[in-house]
Amino acid sequence: MNKGFLITFEGGEGCGKSSQIKLFTKFLEEEKIDFILSREPGGTNIGEDIRNLLLHSKNEIDSKTEFLLFSSGRADHIRNVVKPALEAGKVVVLDRYYDSSFAYQGYAGNLNLDDIKLITDFAIDGCVPDLTILLDISYEYGFARKAKDDNLKNLDRIESKGKEYHDKVRRGYLELAKKEPNRIKIVDATKNKEEIFKEIVDLFLKK
Amino acid sequence: MNKGFLITFEGGEGCGKSSQIKLFTKFLEEEKIDFILSREPGGTNIGEDIRNLLLHSKNEIDSKTEFLLFSSGRADHIRNVVKPALEAGKVVVLDRYYDSSFAYQGYAGNLNLDDIKLITDFAIDGCVPDLTILLDISYEYGFARKAKDDNLKNLDRIESKGKEYHDKVRRGYLELAKKEPNRIKIVDATKNKEEIFKEIVDLFLKK
Repeated sequence: MNKGFLITFEGGEGCGKSSQIKLFTKFLEEEKIDFILSREPGGTNIGEDIRNLLLHSKNEIDSKTEFLLFSSGRADHIRNVVKPALEAGKVVVLDRYYDSSFAYQGYAGNLNLDDIKLITDFAIDGCVPDLTILLDISYEYGFARKAKDDNLKNLDRIESKGKEYHDKVRRGYLELAKKEPNRIKIVDATKNKEEIFKEIVDLFLKK
Repeated sequence: MNKGFLITFEGGEGCGKSSQIKLFTKFLEEEKIDFILSREPGGTNIGEDIRNLLLHSKNEIDSKTEFLLFSSGRADHIRNVVKPALEAGKVVVLDRYYDSSFAYQGYAGNLNLDDIKLITDFAIDGCVPDLTILLDISYEYGFARKAKDDNLKNLDRIESKGKEYHDKVRRGYLELAKKEPNRIKIVDATKNKEEIFKEIVDLFLKK
């Protein structure tokens, strides 16, 4: 693992991504594997500015403008956070990456998949994940879990988009996994936490 | 002119763009032609946020991140400012547009021209100018004029990049004009103000 290792976590709402990332980074710590955990945009000053703009703008942002803003933050994050860590031989754990753009803004949104691909290729400068964990879950199951956790009181703009939208997100993710079976590994997110965690560690160690 | 008319002004530093835009919009006023004058990013709240980020960030922004940020502001500006005005049948006068990205970040910078083209096509949604006025000027002549105006005290990040860079910008612009002679009209910016203005009005009326 001379050049580091990029592992990304993906999945729809309520898929248990945060819990699994917590377990996985704890595992890396225990194994004394040098790693960073990050998400885009962020981690740099300009990245935080872009994050603020995306999250706190009171004005409607159309999907193209939003995707280009995300891509800008992605380019910055790759250059200043991800690449230096990979070059230092670290494991880089990302909570979502470009597969989210394909699933949410491409398959479920109204953006053309070829356009997303071209602009993503430009932004990421060759930084393709070594392994992507797709925590697969149905809308019903995911939101049932979310409801238990926080009573669905605090849904954000994306989360509150309804069943049809989130079904498309899920189908999009599965389509992506079909296209790149060596990189994207589907994990059944309805299993129990410990089982899922074991599966993820196995996938990581096999790479 | 049912669908409006998009005219853009381009050119290197000291080319006299601002003066000519002033004369041209005064002409439109006098002719009672309905118009808006704008520049990107800006004109919308999210556009102003992006402008602030680009102009006032104290942190280094690499060229990819910057170009994607510009493109994001461009997509927003087109959708919310330019298209509505064109659809209302107005003349839209832009102080710089995507040709600047090609000249500055492509020909003079380090970005690939094909990448700039793909991302620009995505951002502008078919909004190609009906007429682009390229005020052509050499580095020496342009900076001599600028020096006279403001003693070169307040050069910004781009302006202070030196002769080699600005020569590449100029050659880039001329290359663009060669590729699209019907859209981009080269005007010799060393002529006197009134002559140039007359030439621009003639080009506009011929379209």
